[in-house]
Amino acid sequence: MENQTGLHVAVVGATGAVGQQMVKTLEERNFPVGKLTLLSSKRSAGTVVTFNGEEVTVQEATPESFEGVQLALFSAGGSISKQLAPEAVKRGAIVVDNTSAYRMDPNVPLVVPEVNEKDLHEHQGIIANPNCSTIQMVAALEPIREALGLTKVVVSTYQAVSGAGAKAINEMKEQSKAILEGKEFTPEVLPVSGDEKHYQIAFNAIPQIDKFEENGYTFEEMKMINETKKIMGMPNLEVAATCVRLPVETGHSESVYIEVEKSGTSVEEIKELLVNAPGIVLEDNPSEQIYPMPAHAVGKKEVFVGRIRKDLDRENAFHLWVVSDNLLKGAAWNSVQISESLLKLGILK
Amino acid sequence: MENQTGLHVAVVGATGAVGQQMVKTLEERNFPVGKLTLLSSKRSAGTVVTFNGEEVTVQEATPESFEGVQLALFSAGGSISKQLAPEAVKRGAIVVDNTSAYRMDPNVPLVVPEVNEKDLHEHQGIIANPNCSTIQMVAALEPIREALGLTKVVVSTYQAVSGAGAKAINEMKEQSKAILEGKEFTPEVLPVSGDEKHYQIAFNAIPQIDKFEENGYTFEEMKMINETKKIMGMPNLEVAATCVRLPVETGHSESVYIEVEKSGTSVEEIKELLVNAPGIVLEDNPSEQIYPMPAHAVGKKEVFVGRIRKDLDRENAFHLWVVSDNLLKGAAWNSVQISESLLKLGILK
Repeated sequence: MENQTGLHVAVVGATGAVGQQMVKTLEERNFPVGKLTLLSSKRSAGTVVTFNGEEVTVQEATPESFEGVQLALFSAGGSISKQLAPEAVKRGAIVVDNTSAYRMDPNVPLVVPEVNEKDLHEHQGIIANPNCSTIQMVAALEPIREALGLTKVVVSTYQAVSGAGAKAINEMKEQSKAILEGKEFTPEVLPVSGDEKHYQIAFNAIPQIDKFEENGYTFEEMKMINETKKIMGMPNLEVAATCVRLPVETGHSESVYIEVEKSGTSVEEIKELLVNAPGIVLEDNPSEQIYPMPAHAVGKKEVFVGRIRKDLDRENAFHLWVVSDNLLKGAAWNSVQISESLLKLGILK
Repeated sequence: MENQTGLHVAVVGATGAVGQQMVKTLEERNFPVGKLTLLSSKRSAGTVVTFNGEEVTVQEATPESFEGVQLALFSAGGSISKQLAPEAVKRGAIVVDNTSAYRMDPNVPLVVPEVNEKDLHEHQGIIANPNCSTIQMVAALEPIREALGLTKVVVSTYQAVSGAGAKAINEMKEQSKAILEGKEFTPEVLPVSGDEKHYQIAFNAIPQIDKFEENGYTFEEMKMINETKKIMGMPNLEVAATCVRLPVETGHSESVYIEVEKSGTSVEEIKELLVNAPGIVLEDNPSEQIYPMPAHAVGKKEVFVGRIRKDLDRENAFHLWVVSDNLLKGAAWNSVQISESLLKLGILK
């Protein structure tokens, strides 16, 4: 599709779970798209996608696909980003990359607009979209850090299978059916499609997301640890993570323990900070059984925070429960939000 | 059933999920049962249960049911224990109570045999079996505490629906079917059958187990906090808990952050402590993707520990992942194990 005004935008990985949400979110937000180029692997090329009432045919991504593209949203895996993001930049595009390929590159801003929008000014062509579980946590912690200081974070995650792609969703559903009907099944995808062993996800909890590093932490856990420090600009912040995959289709949850600098803070003060924070919805009323849950967060852009409690032993410590749609704020929406910030700041014209 | 030798044992709540496991475990362990009296509510009376090849008819529990009983295992809800445990004691029985009715009573030992078996000597008729999520955690932490000292525990739980009884299991299965078939459903049991609102558990995570207290913590969370201090005999131990219900039928998991007293401890030292600990199975080999999971723990008596990592910031801090069958070590097996300890120590003759 092509309009007289507006930007030439490309979405790479347009047929994937996140790519589809990116196209949908661009439409919903009335992002000023003049021309939309949808790209994918050779296998998915030819798929037809409707955008603003017009049909767009997905094409195979090649370096030449980026001629004239001003903004390219990548979500087709790290190796594709490694290969094609520089090609897009060479041709004048700004890249917002949803893979882990460039996140820890010191020359690449890693951005959650509610936290470090100003880092976009430092871009050299590529901007990285953080890991889904990191985004929702730092969005919830930033208002607290700003007002009270933050010294320590210990997070345990409850992550949905859609973070592992469409095959993982399908595996969870097929396994659930098989178990309910008393039939046999063979795990083939989760916890990590490229790892050696596969385990049952239906009616189970798997404490492995991504492969293991030498230090015993998984890559997902190290992403949360390193990305949180980079986004918040706090290299010395204490961060630890345990990441667990659950039989939930969409919506990541996090049990977060924090220690803050300022003494004498009450739960009410933290609630007040979060009620007024951008992109955050406070859902915290125990007497009415109000708290965030993945089933209620699906399809919503916000980060939901509840179960805020003061630690009963350490004066400066608190507990929170943070939930968000991992395909939206965790991926597609944060990428489009970065794009909106680029326009607002005059970086993208 | 009646034999010439052996004890007169009663199981109260014999038709419930835990009660059935108690009967099964007494049989499996060849516990010296001379006569078995199975008790329940009026509604379930008349049910026939097979024990050691003989049929036993469940009777309605009344004070007189305990005439001649030497050991009574209770698992029929707190109000039944409040009403009938003193009647059993009055008639000469030792009561092992699986409800929360007496756990924090200073005159009642709260026992996990691997941790504080010696507290059984202090009993005055009633011995309390701790909360399921507490038992598996303290069993895993005791060998560490003993060797290294323990100063702080922060736990996030991943709890199975069988902890909320047979109705909750059924609700999870029916909801899962309905969602997979695109049908409507109305939550009626979880998170807490006696609370006002009910939420979807299938393909969801609910951060509420038991009702809320005034301080914003749930009763389940406060049970973990208070019972851990009592069982470990450490009133000043820092303990915090966030308890979450998952769509898992049986098997509780826990992400546990701990701080120890002794400096310079390695992960290998902690693994060594746990390999040699009673009732613990170490499942911790990241390079082979070996770690505990609820689906693998079902039907087993042990507590499984893995994902042991040194905190990357605090020298004396570690992370663990602890899994156990909540109906066995979390309830029935721990009660039978207490009974075996009572025999071994000569308290029950």
